[in-house]
Amino acid sequence: MDSSYGRNFRITIFGQSHSPAIGVTVQGVPAGFRLDRAALQAFLDRRAPGRDATSTPRREADEPEFLSGLVGDVACGAPLAAIIRNTNTRSQDYDALRDVPRPGHADWPAHVRFGGAQDVAGGGHFSGRLTAPLCIAGGIALQILARRGVAVQARAERVAGETDPERQREAILAAKADGDSVGGVISCEVRGMPVGIGDPMFGGMENRIAQAVFGIPGVKGIEFGDGFAASERRGSENNDPYRMVDGKVKPVTNHAGGILGGLSTGEPIAFRVAVKPTSSIALEQDSVNLRTGENARLQVRGRHDPCIVIRAVPCVEAAAAIAVCDALMERG
Amino acid sequence: MDSSYGRNFRITIFGQSHSPAIGVTVQGVPAGFRLDRAALQAFLDRRAPGRDATSTPRREADEPEFLSGLVGDVACGAPLAAIIRNTNTRSQDYDALRDVPRPGHADWPAHVRFGGAQDVAGGGHFSGRLTAPLCIAGGIALQILARRGVAVQARAERVAGETDPERQREAILAAKADGDSVGGVISCEVRGMPVGIGDPMFGGMENRIAQAVFGIPGVKGIEFGDGFAASERRGSENNDPYRMVDGKVKPVTNHAGGILGGLSTGEPIAFRVAVKPTSSIALEQDSVNLRTGENARLQVRGRHDPCIVIRAVPCVEAAAAIAVCDALMERG
Amino acid sequence: MDSSYGRNFRITIFGQSHSPAIGVTVQGVPAGFRLDRAALQAFLDRRAPGRDATSTPRREADEPEFLSGLVGDVACGAPLAAIIRNTNTRSQDYDALRDVPRPGHADWPAHVRFGGAQDVAGGGHFSGRLTAPLCIAGGIALQILARRGVAVQARAERVAGETDPERQREAILAAKADGDSVGGVISCEVRGMPVGIGDPMFGGMENRIAQAVFGIPGVKGIEFGDGFAASERRGSENNDPYRMVDGKVKPVTNHAGGILGGLSTGEPIAFRVAVKPTSSIALEQDSVNLRTGENARLQVRGRHDPCIVIRAVPCVEAAAAIAVCDALMERG
Amino acid sequence: MDSSYGRNFRITIFGQSHSPAIGVTVQGVPAGFRLDRAALQAFLDRRAPGRDATSTPRREADEPEFLSGLVGDVACGAPLAAIIRNTNTRSQDYDALRDVPRPGHADWPAHVRFGGAQDVAGGGHFSGRLTAPLCIAGGIALQILARRGVAVQARAERVAGETDPERQREAILAAKADGDSVGGVISCEVRGMPVGIGDPMFGGMENRIAQAVFGIPGVKGIEFGDGFAASERRGSENNDPYRMVDGKVKPVTNHAGGILGGLSTGEPIAFRVAVKPTSSIALEQDSVNLRTGENARLQVRGRHDPCIVIRAVPCVEAAAAIAVCDALMERG
Repeated sequence: MDSSYGRNFRITIFGQSHSPAIGVTVQGVPAGFRLDRAALQAFLDRRAPGRDATSTPRREADEPEFLSGLVGDVACGAPLAAIIRNTNTRSQDYDALRDVPRPGHADWPAHVRFGGAQDVAGGGHFSGRLTAPLCIAGGIALQILARRGVAVQARAERVAGETDPERQREAILAAKADGDSVGGVISCEVRGMPVGIGDPMFGGMENRIAQAVFGIPGVKGIEFGDGFAASERRGSENNDPYRMVDGKVKPVTNHAGGILGGLSTGEPIAFRVAVKPTSSIALEQDSVNLRTGENARLQVRGRHDPCIVIRAVPCVEAAAAIAVCDALMERG
Repeated sequence: MDSSYGRNFRITIFGQSHSPAIGVTVQGVPAGFRLDRAALQAFLDRRAPGRDATSTPRREADEPEFLSGLVGDVACGAPLAAIIRNTNTRSQDYDALRDVPRPGHADWPAHVRFGGAQDVAGGGHFSGRLTAPLCIAGGIALQILARRGVAVQARAERVAGETDPERQREAILAAKADGDSVGGVISCEVRGMPVGIGDPMFGGMENRIAQAVFGIPGVKGIEFGDGFAASERRGSENNDPYRMVDGKVKPVTNHAGGILGGLSTGEPIAFRVAVKPTSSIALEQDSVNLRTGENARLQVRGRHDPCIVIRAVPCVEAAAAIAVCDALMERG
Repeated sequence: MDSSYGRNFRITIFGQSHSPAIGVTVQGVPAGFRLDRAALQAFLDRRAPGRDATSTPRREADEPEFLSGLVGDVACGAPLAAIIRNTNTRSQDYDALRDVPRPGHADWPAHVRFGGAQDVAGGGHFSGRLTAPLCIAGGIALQILARRGVAVQARAERVAGETDPERQREAILAAKADGDSVGGVISCEVRGMPVGIGDPMFGGMENRIAQAVFGIPGVKGIEFGDGFAASERRGSENNDPYRMVDGKVKPVTNHAGGILGGLSTGEPIAFRVAVKPTSSIALEQDSVNLRTGENARLQVRGRHDPCIVIRAVPCVEAAAAIAVCDALMERG
Repeated sequence: MDSSYGRNFRITIFGQSHSPAIGVTVQGVPAGFRLDRAALQAFLDRRAPGRDATSTPRREADEPEFLSGLVGDVACGAPLAAIIRNTNTRSQDYDALRDVPRPGHADWPAHVRFGGAQDVAGGGHFSGRLTAPLCIAGGIALQILARRGVAVQARAERVAGETDPERQREAILAAKADGDSVGGVISCEVRGMPVGIGDPMFGGMENRIAQAVFGIPGVKGIEFGDGFAASERRGSENNDPYRMVDGKVKPVTNHAGGILGGLSTGEPIAFRVAVKPTSSIALEQDSVNLRTGENARLQVRGRHDPCIVIRAVPCVEAAAAIAVCDALMERG
């Protein structure tokens, strides 16, 4: 626990990096919804590794098998369950990690939390691999939203501080060559939101999206609208004035990122997500040996992404879509 | 909805700015816990307005009345309920706002969300006044945590971009003189955390704290540890190496802000919160008239804080304490 | 915990028999809903004690004060909170009970559960007095349902085994004269249900209603439709055949009590509730002294209902209304 | 929705009678718990059909495949997921049922609820087949409870009104010969409960167990302790007096069924469950044709249990174990 999210569009993610399968259950897919499997697969492929030199050479067949919830391609109202079999696993890569926790990973607090029973292989339930079922649920949410006129789009705004895609790529390859890694910032927009979605206080759109997005491993910050920059502005600059446009009320700017008092304003919900540099690096690091209680040096082997930002882009879309879909369904 | 938070330390906040009372119910206060009323009052006083020239001249007697959950000062295990009567209200200040929504406030999306039935007086349930019951619950959580050796402390790290308290004060007064407002950044640390608290995925400490903190009006961003700055670092710089210190495993740096994989590492949980400049400003602003459907000019009257950052500091402590208390209780 | 119920129409009940007040928060009252206060009061009066010789001579002024959630009589979409002050309390009646638990009451398990910190006065949070805030929430739910064409009506089907009201009354007075008490069976019907409300498995109408109704102190059983009697029938007798009636599908009998697979069939939801005889009796009983660890004799003093069945009738309506309202709102 | 139950031991059941698989996710299995697979299989076999002439000749291989949550046989703290492939399905048996709802089944309200998109094959998500994943989760709960000294045992107290097993069997075979079905009553006891488990009001042991047990298809009633019979007793007969026994407080009778005020008393939690006669019968029945809107006659084909009571016995144990396990974990 707690690998569940949502109240109306409710998901539970299960699986470990090297367990027989990973998967997700989704409750709340509207009965009669027709799943576009090709579109879902195209979405999942954006997250899949091994597509170019900037990501891990592991190849994962992220093809979901639907166990329930559909009749043909149509949702029947029962809980949907989808799994992906884990095949290309090399557990031996991780055997040494049981005793020597990797800096930047959950290894050590998980060791304490689960009394040593946690699945160490590939990071277990904490692995970035678990974003695959997140993307299955998110891909379904995106399709539901699209039919309501709501679109979610994210992009790698910065990688290693670079905004230009070519320079981002160079920075990633340079880090890889050094046995190191880089992070970045993902920006995301949700367009087509009706006005007034969300709830006050702890059910606001910021709360909901933040709770979902921090479920993606490596996310360390989130800001909505002008966020931290707004904290240095004056109210007269930051407030979004209203005007009547085509007979409708419209904020003429969107410093608020489409959310006021937790409720959607109808403007794009805009937020930015800070992703830390990948924790798994080839460089040798200081750690400790939990068994012997002595200091140790650690070299993480295996095939790792020098940068997860690019692959995390669809994950942010997935998390946002799940949060927005859940909020939208609150009102029927 | 959804003015509730938590699963083990579970609160529901109720009230509107000008309703007969505001309050909170708290489920999960350990039976036998002895409330230090004076300490709670001192904590609430830090949030209360009217203490100096930088805040609103409104005076609010934030003295909670406990309706249930205590026998004398000792928690009996039943839901605790506490209220604060609303007395110093001037509803007429807000009468004009029914038709002309204030930029930067929830007025307009709330109008759509509640079909015009929302309580407009003083911002209703969206008012910053509702942080008073948040602080009641948070003040109780702080006392529970203190007895477990956990301390929560926040401070106004930046106001209007200034880090020096005197210059912060000057910036606030300058904005006030201009009929304008300023925002800032609050940093917070939770010290004394056991290792391994929190859950994977959506139950991580970041998810939990973010969901609570975004419940404070005006918060637009949150980052843990090095947050957005970490996104420009390399893994070798950002990973926190482990060393054995006094026979215990210890991360020797804390770029992670005390959280890995959602779980506490035992280092201080450190996060920063972006607070936007107060939306209520005296300067005339563009808005619309919802009744006539025409553009309008709006001048917000009443007594408002030119900066809520200082008063929001205990609110951030309260929100963090509630989130941490709830997570700690997960494990009994 | 756990004094909360529901997901869409969500209530939290607080208070102890002798705390300053008892009350309830209700989230989910539709914005714009106009409360009929007189109708609510009339409903609460049906539960109030002291109306005739068969109930306790205690007089309780069950007049709720609304602290939030309303503007005038109209729900504003914010959480509603209502309280009833506890005035007519005689704590000294209960002082002796701290050490000697009353048979049939929660005294002893509560002592263990709360480590002796529980509020013993009047049964604390376990008191039947807490059905007053249940009836506030239920009375509101009843009004919401009525406007959707759904009516809930319960009656004392049996008291002390008697079905005739006059003989019921005699049985109650006879028990009272003996310093004893009687129980009974309450039957309840929910009419006007749309077809298909509820969810499969744990969200079925039976699950929801049962979870709510067992919240009433003294309830020890519930059966839907023919219930236990159906268990002795054959399928051919118990199945409700369908016919087309006025162009609509209609079960021609209602052995199922209006629920199949957890979903409403459109026929009246019919259920029966077993209420045990009041635990508080004047007769001397065997108990133990928790302080001395010795056997003891106990005589419960104070003013008690010789039968709570009559007063529990509106409580059953309240619980059912809350459950049905919550289920109906699931679908918007 | 809502195929989930529990807060600490949290399950989500998925699957339809004829979907590729049925299964369950379980969150909250203690890390380090070692699963006894043979004992689990033996438990599941008690529910499996086809074991003798009184149940359906369908043979189902209820052998769960564990997809996640275990490392070897040991729980790792991550969500556990287990599935059973559906193999022996004959969908053509159900093709005619799309238009003509079976009396006593969820067919018709499900048709309305899901707008015709529901999975009709084999009853879809409403099928008794879904008790197999319930029993997987329940079987795990039973093992967790056993290690805490808590045992759950149910039995078919009455079948077709008969208490003698041989006469029960005769009654079942007689009904089968007639193309009809019979129901019964299952009694269940939970022994070894600590004192004070459960919560007041809606979190009481009765509420929790009832909510779980009504998740079993065909259950129409539940009573705790003396239940409906208690409603005809006097308080002096129904109260359970306390005595000191071997230095411990002990109720000397157990009319309360081990629960007072929702809390466990330490005596066996005893309850009885009413199971209706199987809805699927071979006899021709009245129904309607949803497509043509005309009355129709229906003969349900396929292989059905003339009595589900015997097979429901382990399901009741499973539901009770899940509820009790969840409640026990509330306190760590």
